Amino acid sequence: MALIVQKYGGTSVGSLERINIVAQHIKETQEKGNKVVAIVSAMAGETDKLIKMAKELSKHPSDREMDLLLSSGERISSALVAIRINEIGAKAVALTGRQCGIVTDEVHTKARIKSINSKRIFEHLDNNEIVIVAGFQGISYTTGDVTTLGRGGSDTTAVAIAAALKADVCEIYTDVDGIYTADPRIVSNARKLNKISYSEMMELASLGAKVLQIRSVEFGMKYEVPIMVLSSFTFNPGTLVTKEDKEMEKIVVSGIAHDKNQARLKINDVSDQPGVAARIFNEIAKSNINVDMIVQNVSDDGKRTDISFTVPRDDAEKAFEILKRLAKDLNAGEVSVNKDVAKVSVVGVGMRSHPGVAARMFNTLSSENINIRAISTSEIKISCLIDEKYTELAVRSLHESFGLDKESA
Amino acid sequence: MALIVQKYGGTSVGSLERINIVAQHIKETQEKGNKVVAIVSAMAGETDKLIKMAKELSKHPSDREMDLLLSSGERISSALVAIRINEIGAKAVALTGRQCGIVTDEVHTKARIKSINSKRIFEHLDNNEIVIVAGFQGISYTTGDVTTLGRGGSDTTAVAIAAALKADVCEIYTDVDGIYTADPRIVSNARKLNKISYSEMMELASLGAKVLQIRSVEFGMKYEVPIMVLSSFTFNPGTLVTKEDKEMEKIVVSGIAHDKNQARLKINDVSDQPGVAARIFNEIAKSNINVDMIVQNVSDDGKRTDISFTVPRDDAEKAFEILKRLAKDLNAGEVSVNKDVAKVSVVGVGMRSHPGVAARMFNTLSSENINIRAISTSEIKISCLIDEKYTELAVRSLHESFGLDKESA
Repeated sequence: MALIVQKYGGTSVGSLERINIVAQHIKETQEKGNKVVAIVSAMAGETDKLIKMAKELSKHPSDREMDLLLSSGERISSALVAIRINEIGAKAVALTGRQCGIVTDEVHTKARIKSINSKRIFEHLDNNEIVIVAGFQGISYTTGDVTTLGRGGSDTTAVAIAAALKADVCEIYTDVDGIYTADPRIVSNARKLNKISYSEMMELASLGAKVLQIRSVEFGMKYEVPIMVLSSFTFNPGTLVTKEDKEMEKIVVSGIAHDKNQARLKINDVSDQPGVAARIFNEIAKSNINVDMIVQNVSDDGKRTDISFTVPRDDAEKAFEILKRLAKDLNAGEVSVNKDVAKVSVVGVGMRSHPGVAARMFNTLSSENINIRAISTSEIKISCLIDEKYTELAVRSLHESFGLDKESA
Repeated sequence: MALIVQKYGGTSVGSLERINIVAQHIKETQEKGNKVVAIVSAMAGETDKLIKMAKELSKHPSDREMDLLLSSGERISSALVAIRINEIGAKAVALTGRQCGIVTDEVHTKARIKSINSKRIFEHLDNNEIVIVAGFQGISYTTGDVTTLGRGGSDTTAVAIAAALKADVCEIYTDVDGIYTADPRIVSNARKLNKISYSEMMELASLGAKVLQIRSVEFGMKYEVPIMVLSSFTFNPGTLVTKEDKEMEKIVVSGIAHDKNQARLKINDVSDQPGVAARIFNEIAKSNINVDMIVQNVSDDGKRTDISFTVPRDDAEKAFEILKRLAKDLNAGEVSVNKDVAKVSVVGVGMRSHPGVAARMFNTLSSENINIRAISTSEIKISCLIDEKYTELAVRSLHESFGLDKESA
């Protein structure tokens, strides 16, 4: 007998028909002799509907009330799933974040879990009941008010509960059937991965493969919760996100990610002396803009240089205004912004012990005449900034070049 | 400076436009120097939508999960109203039933309030904040689970909170602008009452004038909370429901009520001996059917008699089946059901000291050739069962006969 935590996203419970399918699957999981806790998101579209109403009533809705508002969507779907399971002959009970003992900090709309008191969940499980949990929410440890965990927070609820219960597995049901070597809409022979490491998954998640909330993967890695990503539409075997093992290290590159939500800013002819770059990036950070790839050219004369960096595309205009103001103060040259850029990345734990990955990546792009505008690397990832129009070509070429269409290991 | 509790029903907060109007009115109430607590219902239609989903998923949805489901509607509207008030320049905080300290028994879907701990509400009021309360809900004192107070429960939340806070007045905003001497859709010169006693209001509420939930009036009477019923569409002065006073006693009849949700059942030729009637009404009660007017004819020979009684129309078929079964057991005669009946009633605390009200009522109906099929009376009410088709005629005749169109006292 295993203890299984499942999580069903918004499209998985997006209609009464879907709720029925999910209820059946949860019941069958119990009938196989398992204890089951299922976390549910709000029905697809509900959260957006509530946000839209709030924004029509207020330009800056108060965070505390937003959390009260948005947490209702998950309460509704958890009640409906439990009601359906009770109808089809199993016993289920719906619990809110509070009732699951999920205590967070007091940062409304993006709270972080501080602790989980799993006593009540265990009582229901011991009573042979299925526990349905309203995802995405907890309560603040100082005020007792409802908090929410940010977009995609139900993933984090699920993995955190799985960690607290020491569950055997956390199954994340979504509308795709696993993690692929590249976006299947771009690469027709992209292959579903059977296994991937937490660190690779985090790189892929942050690089734009929107299957799992990054924080849930961090949680999974920290507490070593095996996470299975699979589809509630096919129920086929999915991708296991797990600890790194020998087998994974044999594979050089696991996947190709791409992210079009990029813009590149450049400031020319800046005085090349200590403190100048710091001043620029301090100003940008103060506006809550995340800077990603930074390139500073070596200056010919050691006196003046150009600095460029990338930001999320939505923040490009704001960053551009800041940069123009700074250029005046710093007596620098021209300032420019380019929104027609994209980032492509190769990810794999194996590259730590396999040199030459970067070289192959650059060669591949070069052979397609794709210019590289910036480069950033980590231990298990190499990212290149390119012109947006080449994104699909780059992803396909890299996928082929690294042999990702072929089953390995 | 007064402490004012307000309650806004589903149509009052039925759209974002309505929420804006309500938010403005709450803010203006505070600006006049008052402390304000406002209880809100779910947006019109929301509760029905949630019930419909649950019923599609289950023939008998579990009560505990229904309460979690249905309480969400009020959480949403309370958050939206608070968000709007914060936008227009006052300070508001939305509280759930739990956060208002509303503790109930554990009877899900029709819980009764056991106590209210008003500490947190007072803290916010002392902080110059407006408190917006999600109506209709509390928490069970044994399990801590969410409970709901039954249809119209937000009225009871409002009056109970007003009692706990010792508020100066509880204003119930709805889509009508007060209590009338009769239904204005039937009697064109029906008059809005300035004042009415709790006991009269209870009789009117139970007789089919659906303005206030009966339990909220009971609460108001018990704790002497002045209740003002008024419209959130006109904000005109409404009707004050209050303690009986000398002035009210001068008025013989305050209003005419009618109720078409009636059916009359009859069992003929029953043995006229102790225990037979008890057996019949025990069986009916076991099926949770409320019996209202009971008529047992005096038998000619002291041996056999006929018994008739009324039930809500929806329960007529169920009661009919029970009665047919009993007739066989009791060796009684024919059993019949008539759904084309209605109840008209005259209500007034003044009738205690003014004899002749019943006589005038019977005379008025008789002069219109309306047959009386059953009669029931209380200290401040006389009800007659008549054929449904005469309802409007009866109400209009009685309204005129008792001079209700003329302003008195």
